[in-house]
Amino acid sequence: MNKLNRFIRPLVRELHGYVPGEQPKIKGLIKLNTNENPYPPSPKVLDAVKAATDSRFRLYPNPSAQPLRERLARLHRCAPENIIIGNGSDELLALATRAFVEPKASVPKSALYRATVQYFTPSYSLYPVLGDIHGAAKNPVPLEKDFALPSVASLRRGRKWRFNAALTLVTTPNAPSGRGYVTSELETLCRSQNGLVILDEAYVDFAEENALALALKYPHVIVSRTFSKAYSLCFQRVGYFVAHPELIAALDKIRDSYNVNGLGQVAAVATLGDLPYYRENFRKVIATRERLTRELTGLGFAVSPSQTNFILARPPLPAAEEWLHRLREQKILVRWFSDPETRDFLRITIGTDAEADALLKAVRRVQAGK
Amino acid sequence: MNKLNRFIRPLVRELHGYVPGEQPKIKGLIKLNTNENPYPPSPKVLDAVKAATDSRFRLYPNPSAQPLRERLARLHRCAPENIIIGNGSDELLALATRAFVEPKASVPKSALYRATVQYFTPSYSLYPVLGDIHGAAKNPVPLEKDFALPSVASLRRGRKWRFNAALTLVTTPNAPSGRGYVTSELETLCRSQNGLVILDEAYVDFAEENALALALKYPHVIVSRTFSKAYSLCFQRVGYFVAHPELIAALDKIRDSYNVNGLGQVAAVATLGDLPYYRENFRKVIATRERLTRELTGLGFAVSPSQTNFILARPPLPAAEEWLHRLREQKILVRWFSDPETRDFLRITIGTDAEADALLKAVRRVQAGK
Repeated sequence: MNKLNRFIRPLVRELHGYVPGEQPKIKGLIKLNTNENPYPPSPKVLDAVKAATDSRFRLYPNPSAQPLRERLARLHRCAPENIIIGNGSDELLALATRAFVEPKASVPKSALYRATVQYFTPSYSLYPVLGDIHGAAKNPVPLEKDFALPSVASLRRGRKWRFNAALTLVTTPNAPSGRGYVTSELETLCRSQNGLVILDEAYVDFAEENALALALKYPHVIVSRTFSKAYSLCFQRVGYFVAHPELIAALDKIRDSYNVNGLGQVAAVATLGDLPYYRENFRKVIATRERLTRELTGLGFAVSPSQTNFILARPPLPAAEEWLHRLREQKILVRWFSDPETRDFLRITIGTDAEADALLKAVRRVQAGK
Repeated sequence: MNKLNRFIRPLVRELHGYVPGEQPKIKGLIKLNTNENPYPPSPKVLDAVKAATDSRFRLYPNPSAQPLRERLARLHRCAPENIIIGNGSDELLALATRAFVEPKASVPKSALYRATVQYFTPSYSLYPVLGDIHGAAKNPVPLEKDFALPSVASLRRGRKWRFNAALTLVTTPNAPSGRGYVTSELETLCRSQNGLVILDEAYVDFAEENALALALKYPHVIVSRTFSKAYSLCFQRVGYFVAHPELIAALDKIRDSYNVNGLGQVAAVATLGDLPYYRENFRKVIATRERLTRELTGLGFAVSPSQTNFILARPPLPAAEEWLHRLREQKILVRWFSDPETRDFLRITIGTDAEADALLKAVRRVQAGK
């Protein structure tokens, strides 16, 4: 019993926080558990950060990351007012919950939709945590068995889906399955919604298409992006939303004044100045992903087709959780989720070709009972 | 009329966001408006950041900034579990509001104290904004005329103060007045409170004493610190709280998983490795502050005694707001707040000696009608 409980909101006492993937510093460990990019940022990004490491540290950074907003606006052919920069897209997802969703306690039961955060399962496991932290109602709705989006007709038939939920979050391509969704299908889903929709495109640079245009076409659609994974910038925490300026302005009112650190802003601007470097990395990651999918399939794994920098693979016996431990003994760290929909799978981040070879070798050793 | 209003919480629609001080990039402008340190960070800090600017950017930073927590724990002779690191102390102040204060809509009128954020006026103008964003009740209570803390006896007599407010925020030394408070007085105030107290020591390194010990002595007292001002690290967003581990654990549950950027963590750890460099800067800032106080007093300003890196000065005629514009014409940027308690004053950040000379020269030119 926590003796300081009386100081802590009951809602917070009861929370189970989000558990991020392990960040161990074990020598020789190959880390394929948190979907980081195996390739470093562009040398131009590192140079820009070093060049900005000077007496400016004593000053506050640009409060709205304006130079980065302007650069992104040119890239996406929209206005800076369509863009908000966050301390990683996680911060923006949390802000969106607070700006657009009522806590349950604030609404009568008849208006529970205004307090509802809705998402498919499985998808990014942060969404229910954000709902809980905010005291919102959660409406998890299963994806199809093969992680496809249910059609709007089947969502209507299923009756569980809320077309008027305050906020619907869609991870596209999906995590943890890696499944990609076509834009026309996402557009149909968005059009059916009376509330806001966030298309969380954290992994979209590894996919065949993206749905950014929907954020500029529909005032109730937000697209979330991040520099973390595709642009090798996890360390510096930069993500962004693209949306209607009135939604951006609402988020802007409730964020911390200086939410994005200065060197993160510098690094992200420099990243946008060297996109060909990153596109070459996307090609390499995709090639490794396709090879790993083939080879693991040959070893008896059932691998879902992926449009991300990870794969979800159902291993042959033993159980997936057991594989997690066996691979770790071989110094390969992958991710396993205990939820019913995913407990039979391993989620494996796509590393370099050498890391893929090491993984395949470890798999063969486990299968040989070594 | 905002046509997307139906998507935005009424509470957010009605908000007036916090307005940070200007960050203009005007050539030759002397910036004495946002309490930044005039001296750069230690060369060792810049070296450490450059040395960490490498392929690690692709990886997530330590999620709890553990190395920094451990270093701070040694400095403050407490456990790492007594410490949480934030993306600036602003993030932590916002988290505290969300962890420890109920929104008004969640409590019956008879329990409004559980939804109350309490603070003195004038103090850090962010506090009421945090209360509004969270939908909390605000209880602003005036400081004495000379910005002294009212005694507990006088707070009892005044009847406006809430001894059971969920969260009481005390800026110590005070901003924007610069007035310092003795620890015994703060201790008496803390002991009188049934709710939590945050002692916001953003400027304490420029003061004669600090109250950190109270956070380790009383389970309901939190001390807030930042690397921004005294340690010339505004750009990289690192602040922290010291408090009972159960309060820290509650804050930890609701923060973003990777809330502190990696290079900010590196910079803060390196800062703690070169404290003598910073102590020398504190001495310089204090010496300049004392000289500026004397000289402005000689020019007809009424300057409150300061224990911070800024002074609050009531200028002779014209009105303070007019002085703001006249000084800006002379390329000196200071801060003016429109609130009734502070509208007769200018808040002036202590710069280098050369900047102090430039300010004094500009004041004389304004007085000479130039």
